[in-house]
Amino acid sequence: MSEEALRAIALQVRNWGRWGPDDELGTLNYRDGGDAPRTPAEVRAMEGYGGSDDWIVMPLQCVTQWDSLAHIFYEGKMYNGYDAALVTSSGAAKNSIDKTKSRLAGRGVLLDVARQKGVKALEPGYAITVADLEATAAAQRVEVLPGDILLVRTGHMSRYLDRNDWRHYDLDPFPGVSVHTAPWLHARQIAAIASDNYAVEVRPSEIAGFRNPFHVVAIPNMGLTLGEIFFLEELAADCAADGRYAFLLVAPPLPVTRGVGTPINPYALK
Amino acid sequence: MSEEALRAIALQVRNWGRWGPDDELGTLNYRDGGDAPRTPAEVRAMEGYGGSDDWIVMPLQCVTQWDSLAHIFYEGKMYNGYDAALVTSSGAAKNSIDKTKSRLAGRGVLLDVARQKGVKALEPGYAITVADLEATAAAQRVEVLPGDILLVRTGHMSRYLDRNDWRHYDLDPFPGVSVHTAPWLHARQIAAIASDNYAVEVRPSEIAGFRNPFHVVAIPNMGLTLGEIFFLEELAADCAADGRYAFLLVAPPLPVTRGVGTPINPYALK
Amino acid sequence: MSEEALRAIALQVRNWGRWGPDDELGTLNYRDGGDAPRTPAEVRAMEGYGGSDDWIVMPLQCVTQWDSLAHIFYEGKMYNGYDAALVTSSGAAKNSIDKTKSRLAGRGVLLDVARQKGVKALEPGYAITVADLEATAAAQRVEVLPGDILLVRTGHMSRYLDRNDWRHYDLDPFPGVSVHTAPWLHARQIAAIASDNYAVEVRPSEIAGFRNPFHVVAIPNMGLTLGEIFFLEELAADCAADGRYAFLLVAPPLPVTRGVGTPINPYALK
Amino acid sequence: MSEEALRAIALQVRNWGRWGPDDELGTLNYRDGGDAPRTPAEVRAMEGYGGSDDWIVMPLQCVTQWDSLAHIFYEGKMYNGYDAALVTSSGAAKNSIDKTKSRLAGRGVLLDVARQKGVKALEPGYAITVADLEATAAAQRVEVLPGDILLVRTGHMSRYLDRNDWRHYDLDPFPGVSVHTAPWLHARQIAAIASDNYAVEVRPSEIAGFRNPFHVVAIPNMGLTLGEIFFLEELAADCAADGRYAFLLVAPPLPVTRGVGTPINPYALK
Repeated sequence: MSEEALRAIALQVRNWGRWGPDDELGTLNYRDGGDAPRTPAEVRAMEGYGGSDDWIVMPLQCVTQWDSLAHIFYEGKMYNGYDAALVTSSGAAKNSIDKTKSRLAGRGVLLDVARQKGVKALEPGYAITVADLEATAAAQRVEVLPGDILLVRTGHMSRYLDRNDWRHYDLDPFPGVSVHTAPWLHARQIAAIASDNYAVEVRPSEIAGFRNPFHVVAIPNMGLTLGEIFFLEELAADCAADGRYAFLLVAPPLPVTRGVGTPINPYALK
Repeated sequence: MSEEALRAIALQVRNWGRWGPDDELGTLNYRDGGDAPRTPAEVRAMEGYGGSDDWIVMPLQCVTQWDSLAHIFYEGKMYNGYDAALVTSSGAAKNSIDKTKSRLAGRGVLLDVARQKGVKALEPGYAITVADLEATAAAQRVEVLPGDILLVRTGHMSRYLDRNDWRHYDLDPFPGVSVHTAPWLHARQIAAIASDNYAVEVRPSEIAGFRNPFHVVAIPNMGLTLGEIFFLEELAADCAADGRYAFLLVAPPLPVTRGVGTPINPYALK
Repeated sequence: MSEEALRAIALQVRNWGRWGPDDELGTLNYRDGGDAPRTPAEVRAMEGYGGSDDWIVMPLQCVTQWDSLAHIFYEGKMYNGYDAALVTSSGAAKNSIDKTKSRLAGRGVLLDVARQKGVKALEPGYAITVADLEATAAAQRVEVLPGDILLVRTGHMSRYLDRNDWRHYDLDPFPGVSVHTAPWLHARQIAAIASDNYAVEVRPSEIAGFRNPFHVVAIPNMGLTLGEIFFLEELAADCAADGRYAFLLVAPPLPVTRGVGTPINPYALK
Repeated sequence: MSEEALRAIALQVRNWGRWGPDDELGTLNYRDGGDAPRTPAEVRAMEGYGGSDDWIVMPLQCVTQWDSLAHIFYEGKMYNGYDAALVTSSGAAKNSIDKTKSRLAGRGVLLDVARQKGVKALEPGYAITVADLEATAAAQRVEVLPGDILLVRTGHMSRYLDRNDWRHYDLDPFPGVSVHTAPWLHARQIAAIASDNYAVEVRPSEIAGFRNPFHVVAIPNMGLTLGEIFFLEELAADCAADGRYAFLLVAPPLPVTRGVGTPINPYALK
C-alpha cells in the first residue's frame, strides 16, 4: 500500500467547536511547555525532562462518528426490543458502541451521488432516492454487495469547508438519503451506511411530525449502524481519478464501555 | 478478509477509570432512556421518538494510545528543535497528533518476546535488549523492515487482565524495551513502536536520575511515534497459531487539533 | 465585622483530587500565560493585553458541599414523594439544589463534640448520640433553636489535614451522628446539619444492610439538607476562644439548574 | 434576619449554556433515577436505597463570578509584577482566586445608575462616568466608604431576562463603567466592583485598540477584584422600596486551587 492510496475520512475533532460559540472547547491541557523546567536549576533537577498531556471534553457524537444501536429509541424500545430505560446515566447497558469494537472494517463502496448528478453538491432538502443510488452505482460500475459499508456523498460538507465556517452545519437543511431507501438498503444487507451530512438522512424530514424518520427505521428497527459527518471530498476525487469506487474501509470505533457513539478516523485503503 | 482475521488491539476506554478510585469516570450521558417519552401523551407528542447522547471527559493518554511528538521535551525543546513553550493551554502549536492523521497504517510486526523466552510475562523491571528483539524475530521467522510499526509484547498486561484489577498498572514496575535498543530501532527506520505496558520502555529506569530515558531519546530526539497500553493477547495467540507475525496494521489517530496524544483502537488485518 | 471575625469553612476544590490518583484533576486552563503576547510584535498587536481562563471538571459532591433533596431515594421515591425516575441525565426535575438558592443563610450553631469529650478527634466508627449533642450544647452554653444550621465537629478531618494525605478519606470508617439522632433533630426543626466527615453520619453503618441509614431517614423522609466535608478546625478554635458558639452562617449554594449537589464556601460571621 | 431581607445575586449556572447553542451543557449526571433499584429483587438487595450524583463541566468565568488577579496580564505581567508565564496549564502559581477565599464579605453598596437616570436600562455603549456614580450615590443618600464592595446596576441584564434569550449577551455592546472612573474608584479604596453586564466596563471600548481598557487598569495595575454577570434586579427593587442601599454582602469564592476565576452566589443581607 502506498501512502497515496490511503485516505483519512475524518474531520478534525476541534472543528465541532467551530459551529458553537467557543473555539477553545474540546481539549484542555493540564501540563504544557509553561510547566517544563526552565531555569538552569530546574533543568538540572529534572535532568532536562519535560512533557505535556491533555484532556478532551467532547460529545461523543460531535465529529466524524458512528452511532451505536443505543442512540435512538422508538416507543420506548431500542434495537432487539431492549427497553430505553436501559440507557441511564451509567450509559447503555445494551447495544453500546463497544460491542462493535472489532467489527468496523470491510469492503467500502462510495456512491458519489453529487458527481453522478453533475453538481458540486446536492441542494439542501434533496432526498436521495433508490433510483439515485442505483444510477450512481451503475455509472460508477460498482456493485453493492452484502456486508458492504456504504458511503453516500452529497457534497454538502463542501459548502462549509469552502467558506471555512461550520456554524449551523447541524441545524441547516441538508441533502441526504430518503427514508424510502430503507427497504433497498435492507434487501442488500449492507453492514453500515455513512454520509457527509449531519444525519445521513435528508433534512427537513419527508414525513410530517417525524424529525428523523430514517433514524427511527434504521437504528431501532433495522439495527443498521449509521456514520455521520464523514469527510468524503478527497476520497471522491481519488475514486474519480482511478475509477475504483470499492476499497478496504477500516473505521475502528473507540471501545467506550456503555458508550452511545464514538468519534472515528476512518481509513479507505486501495 | 474474514472476520476472524481482524484483531482489535485496544482496551475499553472506561478501563482507565478502573485504575483510579472511580469506576464511573469516563463518559457522562446527557440524554438517556429516562428522558425518553414515557406517558402515552409524551409518546404521541414525540411520535414515539427518543434518543440518547453522551460526552466523554478523559485524558487523551489514558488508554491504548499514540503519543504525539509534542508529548516529551528535552532541555526545553520538542522534536525538530521547536520550543517547548509552543505547547500551551491552547495545545501544541507544533508536532501535534493531528499531523499524523493519515499516516498510521502500514506493515505491522509483532515481536512476542515473552513467548520467545517461554514465559507468560516478562518480569517487572526486565529490560528487553537488542539480542532479545533479534532472537524473537529469528524464532518467529519475520524480518523487521523500514517503515514497519513494531509491536513488542511483554505479556505484562496479562497480570492485570487475569486479576481484573488495573490499580497501579501505571505506577508498578514493568518490563519494557531498554533505552539501548534505540540505535537498533533507528537503524531499522521503523515508523513506530508500541507495547502492552504503560510506557514502552522498562520501569524502573535503567539510568539513574532519568525517569523515562527511552522517551527522551525516542520522542524529542528521534521523532519516533510511541504506542502504549496495547492489548496484544489475542493478536499474539493468533500469530502463534498461524505462524505469521506480519500483518496490515491500521491504527488511525483521532485528528485532535493541537492534541498531544490520542486514544486509538488499532486493527491488525491478515 | 472585623476580618478576624469571618471564618471560611471550605476545603480547596482541588483537594478532592488529592484523594484520588491524579493531583491534576479539577481545573484545566484553556488560555494561560503561554498564550499571552510575547514577542514585541505580538505585544504591539494586542496593545500589551493578555489573559487567562480556566474550566472546571468536577463531581458536584466532591468537596465542601450541600446535598440537594434529589440526592437520595428510598424505594424509588425522593422527598415529597417524587419518583426517582424524575432524576435523569438531564438532572433533577424536582428537589434540585437551585431551589435552595436564596435559603442557605441563618443562625449557625457549632456543636464541638470532640472538644466536649476532651479528644482531638472522635474514634472512627463512633456514633454521636442525642446525649452527646445535648451535653455539648450544655457545656457550650448554646441553645439549638428552630431554623438553625447545625455544624457537628468530630475532629476527624484533622487526621487527614495533619498527615496532608486525603487518600481514603471517603472510604475509611469515620465518626459521625447516629441514625438515632434523627427524631431529636426533627423535633428541634433544624434547617440543615453539616459535619467535618464525609457523610455526616457514622461509618460503618449502625444498621446491618443499610449503607447510609441516616441519609435515608434525613433526605427522602425528613427533607433535611445535609452538608459534608466542612472544614471546622479554625471555627472551633475561634468559638473555644470567645465562648460564642452561635453566629451568622452564610453558605450559598451555586444555583445549578437541576443540580443534585453544590460545592460551597460557607462563611461564619460573628 | 428575615427571609425577605436576603437577596441572592446569582444567575443559574446552566444559564450560561443558554447563550450558546446547547442547553444541555453544564452538568452531567453519572448516577440517576434510572440507575436506582426498580425490580422488587433489586429493591430488596439494596434495602430500597438509591441515589444520584452529578458532575459539572464549566468555564469558571461563565456565570455570576469573581475574576482573580491572575485573569488579565499587561505587557506580560500580572498584578504585583508577577510574570504572566506563571499561569500555565497547572493554573495560576500567583494571584489565584483561592487566595481570596476568606475575604469576600463586607459592606456592599448598590449604585443603581439606571434608576437614577430614570430608565429601565442604560443604552448599550453608554459609559458610566464619575459624575453618574456621584449623582447616584447622592440621590440614594448612600456614601461609598473604604473597603466597600460596589455593585453598579446598568439594567442591561433585564433585556435578556425579559426576552428569556441570552444569546450574544457576551458579544453585544453593553453599558458599563468608563475606564475614566478608575482614579475615582482607587481614591475611594473600594475592595471590589461588580456589575450586571458581562465585563463591568462599557463595550465597545472607549479607547481604540484596547478591547478591555478598564480590565487592564483595574486588574494587573490596581489589583481590583471584578465581579461580572451579577443579577441585581431583585436587589434594586428591594433597595428602592426601603431606601437602604447599603447592606452586608457575602460573596464567597469557591477556593479553587490555582483557579483564575470562580462562580459565586452572592447574598445581600439587610
